[in-house]
Amino acid sequence: MQTDKFTWIEGGGVASAKGFLACGVAAGIKTNRDDMALLFSEEPDTSVAGIFTLNKVAAAPVLLGRKRVARGKCRGVVVNAGCSNACTGEGGYADAVEMARLAAEAVGVPEEQMLCSSTGTIGRRLPMARIAAGIALAKNALHHDGGSEAARAIMTTDTVPKEAALQYVNSVGETITIGGMCKGAGMICPNMATMLCYITTDAAIEPAALHTALVKAASKSFNRITVDGDQSTSDTMLVFANGMGSVSRPGEPVDCELFTGALTALAAKLARKIVEDGEGATKFVAVSVSGAASAADALMAARAIANSPLFKTACFGADPNWGRVICAAGYSGAEVDAMKTRISFDDVLVYDRGTVADASTNERLKTVMSRQAFAVRVDLGLGGFSDEVYTCDFSPEYVRINSDYTT
Amino acid sequence: MQTDKFTWIEGGGVASAKGFLACGVAAGIKTNRDDMALLFSEEPDTSVAGIFTLNKVAAAPVLLGRKRVARGKCRGVVVNAGCSNACTGEGGYADAVEMARLAAEAVGVPEEQMLCSSTGTIGRRLPMARIAAGIALAKNALHHDGGSEAARAIMTTDTVPKEAALQYVNSVGETITIGGMCKGAGMICPNMATMLCYITTDAAIEPAALHTALVKAASKSFNRITVDGDQSTSDTMLVFANGMGSVSRPGEPVDCELFTGALTALAAKLARKIVEDGEGATKFVAVSVSGAASAADALMAARAIANSPLFKTACFGADPNWGRVICAAGYSGAEVDAMKTRISFDDVLVYDRGTVADASTNERLKTVMSRQAFAVRVDLGLGGFSDEVYTCDFSPEYVRINSDYTT
Repeated sequence: MQTDKFTWIEGGGVASAKGFLACGVAAGIKTNRDDMALLFSEEPDTSVAGIFTLNKVAAAPVLLGRKRVARGKCRGVVVNAGCSNACTGEGGYADAVEMARLAAEAVGVPEEQMLCSSTGTIGRRLPMARIAAGIALAKNALHHDGGSEAARAIMTTDTVPKEAALQYVNSVGETITIGGMCKGAGMICPNMATMLCYITTDAAIEPAALHTALVKAASKSFNRITVDGDQSTSDTMLVFANGMGSVSRPGEPVDCELFTGALTALAAKLARKIVEDGEGATKFVAVSVSGAASAADALMAARAIANSPLFKTACFGADPNWGRVICAAGYSGAEVDAMKTRISFDDVLVYDRGTVADASTNERLKTVMSRQAFAVRVDLGLGGFSDEVYTCDFSPEYVRINSDYTT
Repeated sequence: MQTDKFTWIEGGGVASAKGFLACGVAAGIKTNRDDMALLFSEEPDTSVAGIFTLNKVAAAPVLLGRKRVARGKCRGVVVNAGCSNACTGEGGYADAVEMARLAAEAVGVPEEQMLCSSTGTIGRRLPMARIAAGIALAKNALHHDGGSEAARAIMTTDTVPKEAALQYVNSVGETITIGGMCKGAGMICPNMATMLCYITTDAAIEPAALHTALVKAASKSFNRITVDGDQSTSDTMLVFANGMGSVSRPGEPVDCELFTGALTALAAKLARKIVEDGEGATKFVAVSVSGAASAADALMAARAIANSPLFKTACFGADPNWGRVICAAGYSGAEVDAMKTRISFDDVLVYDRGTVADASTNERLKTVMSRQAFAVRVDLGLGGFSDEVYTCDFSPEYVRINSDYTT
């Protein structure tokens, strides 16, 4: 999609689309801050699509969410931070069902039309009294401008809330809005990388088409980022479409294409915010691989580089150790021939098919690596396939954050 | 092999076996310390076997070594630290050939009977004048007690030299010695994990049998450790067997079995030293997975846990965040069912098929995780396969070391 076909909404978020309400409240699961968000669509006929973690150990809300999303219609979701309700057995699953039931009761819809998500420490049961009290608060706090509050309430180790919204004009001249929020800073990995992402739109789109658009958008956004290569048990990406922006409800292919492009742009923006706010991250690094022998090779090589602790620590220190880039490509599983490979950092070519950078090039490389954002480009020289993965640097602060997460 | 069948040699190393000479000298590649080792067998008929990195980008000495080791006979190896001679093109390959030739000339053997290894920064050409000067020094420094000097000279970010030796009695009553040295602290990964390991023995064993024994020993030692999941371009494990301890030269299966057992024990001891000295490591962690549905599953799950930055940072901080263990198993690719899984740290059961640890268990877990060495045991409850991987914790010091490695 051409970027001139949509307009970003300054300060927009998950409640920007027509007919969506949101809020953030303090349920008391975390200390001294909002830790519960509620998101609700006023339109009874709201489509939903969702994709969830591929981790074989999935949190209870994921197990419940998979079932309910499969029905294609849902009105909203309640989310808590501070406890992920993962590895909590049958009791934990019952807690998730109850949490969604309480939210459904609060907003007055059938039980199966509400979803829930939980993020935080694995292996602890939800404090259900606080969940119930939080939902009671949230019921009265829902409003049309509640997107930012909700984005703030779902944060864990995030340092900033992450939200965005945009508008485009559909094939019959109606203005359609898509907005979303996400959270995630650690336990972020290349396959279904976000922990939690919620997107709403007033476009009219049936569940099956919505799912197709979601999968495509995720493949160009959340499935192309990494912070630490760890894949969470809670990863969830949901999109709700209530059709309230589209009186004529067109379902033409052109509208699906417009919608998918806009959804992808929004998801990419949100995904980038996650990398920029990666735990302890000080730099944003785009890793591009071109000239690969296959599409799978391009992605494997880009992911291996983006996940390499040695490459990421070098980025932190602006250490011109580009050898770690080709080393990671070499062990990625992709076809790599050092004599055909070229590596650049922004505009500095550091390795050219067997010829290594000299001292002055390494000085220039150090300058590039000192930037807050830079691109690493690896041309494998073997074929016509390319891919890109976004990552961040690896700092002592990442270790500090994660060495006392539960305590 | 039963451990009572062999005896560890206090202070033993790569020159402990009969007929092996070694030394370490300062060639001036690194500042103010020994940076070159020479290892040589006095016996003209010395068998050799080697395994090398699976990284598709292999350093020049690896490319040369693969060819020469395939012949089955070699007299020794010269090793430098400070420059890995990787990604250096045809010029770099010629440098490796010349380095080996200079060493062969120094010890008076045909060119093709010497090997070389280089470890250090990727993408820099070897300083050949210093290499030549170092080899000239090393020629005169070779001696029968030079094992420790050699072990020290091959260090890079290692904080301690790593060597070991043992003896056993073969089927005809002769005492056989096996000794070795290795180096490696970062860029250590699960598949061919050591950067460099050299083992010598005065056992009589033909190249093919030596190779079989080496592969078996590596699979139970260096291929079961991890520091950071990064697989080096230089990983090399060589074993030289000169037969000087065995006048009768028995080649019976029983001797091969004895030898393989002893070699495996030695390799495991050396591999463990690498993990204990992992960059920035403060703790040694043994990750065992049992009850897996297949052997591949057991290894995949153990490796995923052992490589998880989140698990490793929790180990550093003694943070009782055991959820990261089951999370990593879940995304490893192995079959995992949270309702059948049990997790223990040493003697503390923290998760039992859906039942989570209570607060007092978490306190006991914190005590275990404060130990300098502990074991994590995951019983997947699905089958009869098990495996074990050794890892270390992930500290801010790892980041510090690697963020300014080249500078």
